[in-house]
Amino acid sequence: MINVLVWNEFRHEKCQPAVAEIYPRGLHAAIGEYLSQSEDISVTLASLDDPEQGLSQEQLDHTDVLIWWGHMAHGEVSDEAVERVCRRVNGGMGLVALHSAHHSKVFKRLTGTSCNLKWRHGDRERLWTVIPSHPIAQRIPEHFELPAEEMYGEPFDIPKPDEVVFLGWFAGGEVFRSGITYRRGAGRIFYFQPGHEEYPIFHDENVLRIIKNAVRWAKPAASAAPVECVNPAPLEH
Amino acid sequence: MINVLVWNEFRHEKCQPAVAEIYPRGLHAAIGEYLSQSEDISVTLASLDDPEQGLSQEQLDHTDVLIWWGHMAHGEVSDEAVERVCRRVNGGMGLVALHSAHHSKVFKRLTGTSCNLKWRHGDRERLWTVIPSHPIAQRIPEHFELPAEEMYGEPFDIPKPDEVVFLGWFAGGEVFRSGITYRRGAGRIFYFQPGHEEYPIFHDENVLRIIKNAVRWAKPAASAAPVECVNPAPLEH
Amino acid sequence: MINVLVWNEFRHEKCQPAVAEIYPRGLHAAIGEYLSQSEDISVTLASLDDPEQGLSQEQLDHTDVLIWWGHMAHGEVSDEAVERVCRRVNGGMGLVALHSAHHSKVFKRLTGTSCNLKWRHGDRERLWTVIPSHPIAQRIPEHFELPAEEMYGEPFDIPKPDEVVFLGWFAGGEVFRSGITYRRGAGRIFYFQPGHEEYPIFHDENVLRIIKNAVRWAKPAASAAPVECVNPAPLEH
Amino acid sequence: MINVLVWNEFRHEKCQPAVAEIYPRGLHAAIGEYLSQSEDISVTLASLDDPEQGLSQEQLDHTDVLIWWGHMAHGEVSDEAVERVCRRVNGGMGLVALHSAHHSKVFKRLTGTSCNLKWRHGDRERLWTVIPSHPIAQRIPEHFELPAEEMYGEPFDIPKPDEVVFLGWFAGGEVFRSGITYRRGAGRIFYFQPGHEEYPIFHDENVLRIIKNAVRWAKPAASAAPVECVNPAPLEH
Repeated sequence: MINVLVWNEFRHEKCQPAVAEIYPRGLHAAIGEYLSQSEDISVTLASLDDPEQGLSQEQLDHTDVLIWWGHMAHGEVSDEAVERVCRRVNGGMGLVALHSAHHSKVFKRLTGTSCNLKWRHGDRERLWTVIPSHPIAQRIPEHFELPAEEMYGEPFDIPKPDEVVFLGWFAGGEVFRSGITYRRGAGRIFYFQPGHEEYPIFHDENVLRIIKNAVRWAKPAASAAPVECVNPAPLEH
Repeated sequence: MINVLVWNEFRHEKCQPAVAEIYPRGLHAAIGEYLSQSEDISVTLASLDDPEQGLSQEQLDHTDVLIWWGHMAHGEVSDEAVERVCRRVNGGMGLVALHSAHHSKVFKRLTGTSCNLKWRHGDRERLWTVIPSHPIAQRIPEHFELPAEEMYGEPFDIPKPDEVVFLGWFAGGEVFRSGITYRRGAGRIFYFQPGHEEYPIFHDENVLRIIKNAVRWAKPAASAAPVECVNPAPLEH
Repeated sequence: MINVLVWNEFRHEKCQPAVAEIYPRGLHAAIGEYLSQSEDISVTLASLDDPEQGLSQEQLDHTDVLIWWGHMAHGEVSDEAVERVCRRVNGGMGLVALHSAHHSKVFKRLTGTSCNLKWRHGDRERLWTVIPSHPIAQRIPEHFELPAEEMYGEPFDIPKPDEVVFLGWFAGGEVFRSGITYRRGAGRIFYFQPGHEEYPIFHDENVLRIIKNAVRWAKPAASAAPVECVNPAPLEH
Repeated sequence: MINVLVWNEFRHEKCQPAVAEIYPRGLHAAIGEYLSQSEDISVTLASLDDPEQGLSQEQLDHTDVLIWWGHMAHGEVSDEAVERVCRRVNGGMGLVALHSAHHSKVFKRLTGTSCNLKWRHGDRERLWTVIPSHPIAQRIPEHFELPAEEMYGEPFDIPKPDEVVFLGWFAGGEVFRSGITYRRGAGRIFYFQPGHEEYPIFHDENVLRIIKNAVRWAKPAASAAPVECVNPAPLEH
């Protein structure tokens, strides 16, 4: 069983009726409902206004894969929570960072870069699968469209990804590395660009399947553990 | 002309006579003297006890490549100085991180990992060149020895390097990725493992040449600039 | 069920009694017997002197993962067989290339380099796990020893590996990237350095487990297929 | 001085008047004329119908960087010439492979993959700079357009590039990794997608500057040499 914590800052849904209409119980609930249909996945929902911001040490210790969506309240996430999350990722917890999570404290800290990019509301995207044999691309077509999505464009200020699984084409003229992977410590990270809150992205079958694939890909290895600093005796004399 | 700032926390040399004997004016001075012999390099020395910890915005703005050595006082480097350095690296400044700088706030923040490793004083190292054609390996033999060096051993908890230029073999039985590169934003980073303060590592001709090569390799591109977040109009209609 | 073809050139065992003593039915049989103990693995043995060199199209079409060991007879493998194997790897078949397979036609063709290296019989190796959380490193200790092994040393003339999972330390003073991965087309490749025929390497529990882990890691994705050249109509107008 | 050999199969220009109008003396001549304006570059032109196909060992031995364009006559390039070229690349010669060179024997052999892709004549391309600080991207704008270009689309069946410098956006709806780098042995390789013979791509200032930048980036290191297979005595006892 893969224990997934779907974390959403959960603010747009409360203050913007148009967003609430798409995601009445929050976009994390939409993702969670989809994942819950899989017998190997157990879902917990959490959000910024929960106690300990939904990111207590105990909760994280029981999480195999953390899905993260945030946007307008990145700055409210406490440094302590960020520290706990990053340490757990290094210790083996998977992380699936969605859309505007590119600017979350967590993602910027794990990449070490500004994660700046171009953006524009009201565009249209076509995603292309660049590594069709990648576990995250299983049962995903060679390309699929999101009729309305926010444009994210290059240059995207990130470290060289370990893998670029998807590229995004935008009708307005830009391109983007839309699905990328990293390893940090024992943890696997997948960043996926789609997911603007004003469009029903997390009701799209391909997007949801990619997230599910990423969850299975990112679950910790049996041996996952933080690397410690140790001072061993010599093995040779 | 490449403006190099050689930054050393400069504490061991002040409180440990054995270290002061090897580096009477600090190990940064030894590195700086060597680099100053090159007509294309202009050296400035700085240390933790300087005003603004030797890392003022003005100083960094005039620095092309920052060389960093720190160990016992990592925690004393202010978060503001760390922020200034990391932002400059992303904006194009090169960084050459030496030895125990693996645990500096700056390096951990740019990598996003614990940078933990194995260590043991009083070992002996042989460095192997893995990419002989790399700019940082120019005029470096296929292998060379450091008769006394601190062992640093794998697993080394870092993101996958962009390049592994040197590997280290230790007489005590360990191995290490001793010379590695990263790109962060517009900045180039070279981490080089040799340099324990109790041994005359920064008097070794090969070590010094590698540092000089790294300085030339890491200097900013003419076009280096931070990537900004922008909201452009569509290019297509 | 993972269909594994263990291919061995199978010559040393026939002409060198010392080798035959270690591997009476060939080293491929030793590997195959171990793998056969796993319920998810089905083993077929093949060798150079079989019809079609044991590498018929039909055989390859039914193979999920090909394990390859060759040394003295690299030149005898037909270009047609090499072509069939490389095409199947690109189409999704996994490849586990062992030891002197670094100089096989197949491996050189998939890497595009000379795959030259240093070598010396009668050394002793300690393998270090560099990515403990990697699927191929599961249940493998942080380091383990091979009391007698041929030294393979850097520089190893290969393209930059996708991942370096293991590094080798040799008592004679060298280091080596001993366990590395590549992707070619839809196929996954693991090269593993241990396996000189004069030592009982393929009776070593850690070596065998690494090979088993690699088989599971390298099995084709459900969607694995060769990428075709196509001339589609425009998607946009 | 960088000795550049601009090699063109030079057939379309002889049999297709429309192509000859764009490149009266061959597209290699257009590239060569541009490069010749730089004082640090010395240009030689060669083509398939020259003696030894313009790729004699002597010629290659005096070449620092080889620029390659081919399309309709890939199959006519002799295996011996391919072998000479690939060996020189591994020995340090730079290679700039243009457009349909993706399917040349040389490029396929150096990558080990099919290099298949999507294609369609009569599209329009916008190139995006993904690594603005890369030497090959110096003085290249963030994006620029080619009003008429052949579409090349993903998935592109290549090994993971060492670097993706440019991405291509096509008006017909596709994306492509249009500027990528590899290292093979001591040699640096840059593949650049623009360059269909029916459009005046090699008269475009940005395209030409990218090729010039690539030439400088790909020139051999001072120490460039093939890695040999050697059997050294132990360094330790």
